[in-house]
Amino acid sequence: MSLQTADILAHLHDLVGQDLTLANEMIISQLESDVEMIPLLGQHIIDGGGKRLRPILTLVTARMFGYQGNSHALMAAVVEFIHTATLLHDDVVDGSLTRRGRSTANSVWGPKAPVLVGDYLFSRSFQILVAEGDLAILKIMADACALISEGEVLQLAVSHDLQMKEETYLEVVARKTATLFSAACEIGAVLGQRPASEVRAMAEYGLHFGTAYQVVDDTLDYAAKAETLGKSIGDDFQEGKVTLPMIHAYANGRPEERAFWEQCIEQKQRPDGSLERAIEIIQNRGSLEYAMQQAKSHARKAGEALARLADSPEKTALVQLAEFSVDREY
Amino acid sequence: MSLQTADILAHLHDLVGQDLTLANEMIISQLESDVEMIPLLGQHIIDGGGKRLRPILTLVTARMFGYQGNSHALMAAVVEFIHTATLLHDDVVDGSLTRRGRSTANSVWGPKAPVLVGDYLFSRSFQILVAEGDLAILKIMADACALISEGEVLQLAVSHDLQMKEETYLEVVARKTATLFSAACEIGAVLGQRPASEVRAMAEYGLHFGTAYQVVDDTLDYAAKAETLGKSIGDDFQEGKVTLPMIHAYANGRPEERAFWEQCIEQKQRPDGSLERAIEIIQNRGSLEYAMQQAKSHARKAGEALARLADSPEKTALVQLAEFSVDREY
Repeated sequence: MSLQTADILAHLHDLVGQDLTLANEMIISQLESDVEMIPLLGQHIIDGGGKRLRPILTLVTARMFGYQGNSHALMAAVVEFIHTATLLHDDVVDGSLTRRGRSTANSVWGPKAPVLVGDYLFSRSFQILVAEGDLAILKIMADACALISEGEVLQLAVSHDLQMKEETYLEVVARKTATLFSAACEIGAVLGQRPASEVRAMAEYGLHFGTAYQVVDDTLDYAAKAETLGKSIGDDFQEGKVTLPMIHAYANGRPEERAFWEQCIEQKQRPDGSLERAIEIIQNRGSLEYAMQQAKSHARKAGEALARLADSPEKTALVQLAEFSVDREY
Repeated sequence: MSLQTADILAHLHDLVGQDLTLANEMIISQLESDVEMIPLLGQHIIDGGGKRLRPILTLVTARMFGYQGNSHALMAAVVEFIHTATLLHDDVVDGSLTRRGRSTANSVWGPKAPVLVGDYLFSRSFQILVAEGDLAILKIMADACALISEGEVLQLAVSHDLQMKEETYLEVVARKTATLFSAACEIGAVLGQRPASEVRAMAEYGLHFGTAYQVVDDTLDYAAKAETLGKSIGDDFQEGKVTLPMIHAYANGRPEERAFWEQCIEQKQRPDGSLERAIEIIQNRGSLEYAMQQAKSHARKAGEALARLADSPEKTALVQLAEFSVDREY
């Protein structure tokens, strides 16, 4: 993350002020249980040091629209629960051992607990949503969860296909990542009791911002310094996962480069030095620049989605957040 | 399953008639998706040849209370989705390769798909429930799912503890198995717009019947012929899972028997012949009879829960179902 993005995140933290503290408190209090492992999980989330990007979107949007109650903090906690549940299950599916530079729950508890604890977070989230009783918000979250898991299943089916179309890749990104960004924003607007056009504008902002964010993440996997991104580079490559830089490099590759990609992905042969070669080809084909252009296009659309909304410090911060998210170091 | 239970199940099928066909159709139609793996899953459920015990509870209860609409079939499909999702995740957690004598999804698709496909079933279920818009039913299902996954997490924490208290074992059984039986019945009563006392009676029936059912299942694991139950015996033992027969045999065991259990469970040493010895000890300690008595006590309470409801062919069938479920061959 570049200094600029850190700055804008700090600014967002300032804007939401005590609301984020309240959301963090709810993350703990909503996971009280006589089953010992469950409160530990709340602590794991809090200590995990995630950026709380998605709950912040809910809090900032609610505040932007003048929402006065406390439900936004509870909804922000739910958004983080759903996010954590998908991370826990992703880690099991990918067999990942680290995330954000820390041991994943999977590597700490073995593969059993994260599946069930993720399920608990999903169910607890719906329990909270039902207790709140807002059918519009329930619909947003139920639709989001269905889209996310459909996206995850789709990714499983296509993620090792070198000939994946760019639109299929973007479809996976939209469903599995951008959907929750979108829902987080939409909920804030619904809480603010805004007209449908403004709720849609926020949903659109979230969808484009989330897409930009994930495309940048996938691109940095071939470029970032491990310390900068908080994860090692080449994770996707080592897992044989096909993302935009590789799709572009393969589609525009020379015959011997295409043979290299086929060997790495289809034959799953990645001898020492493969990652270095992959990075070299991706740079030579201009695939990083290409992928970043796509990300920037979505970041711009995110900003445009907010154009018709009244100006406010929150709106400015959201536009900047989308812009700066594609300026991350690479 | 004894002939008697098969008879009563056939009778229940007769009672719900076309409703079960309708529920099966909904299982297929609600899993339409452009993501290829998802409709396959619907077929996997239908072809799986499960007894559809839980959805039948919803259908029979709705019919018993004179419900006239079509929502009961949709709710029955949702109940089966939730059941299937928990089976898929259980199989991943347990690493099981067969269920009901068939390959599990886990062994067919590897461990990745079942986690995500299970998530899809959970999310799709809530999407359907939200579209129906009945907050009372939403609450029943959200509470049930939270209890189930809390029960699964609890089981993970205690399942290898030889000193587990019987009440802890029953708590796990109530949460992870009986909760869905209870919710399935409760939903039928809510659809029938019955007063709270009758809804509670149905919930209580489901809870006791579900408990009896699971205790029998756990007991037959040390007694049933593999062909009868459709699964191999000794699964729990081989996984080191502590259930009621073992709890009883350990608590009432002679010193050398306790040492045997400690070796098998705590030191995870189960050389050839261990299962045979385990079965022998369990028989000698009267632990099968003891566990079956507990199951019968819950089956009786299930019947008693329905005592104040008006007589009907459906009520008679439900009482018989609970009675016969504890008469399964062993």
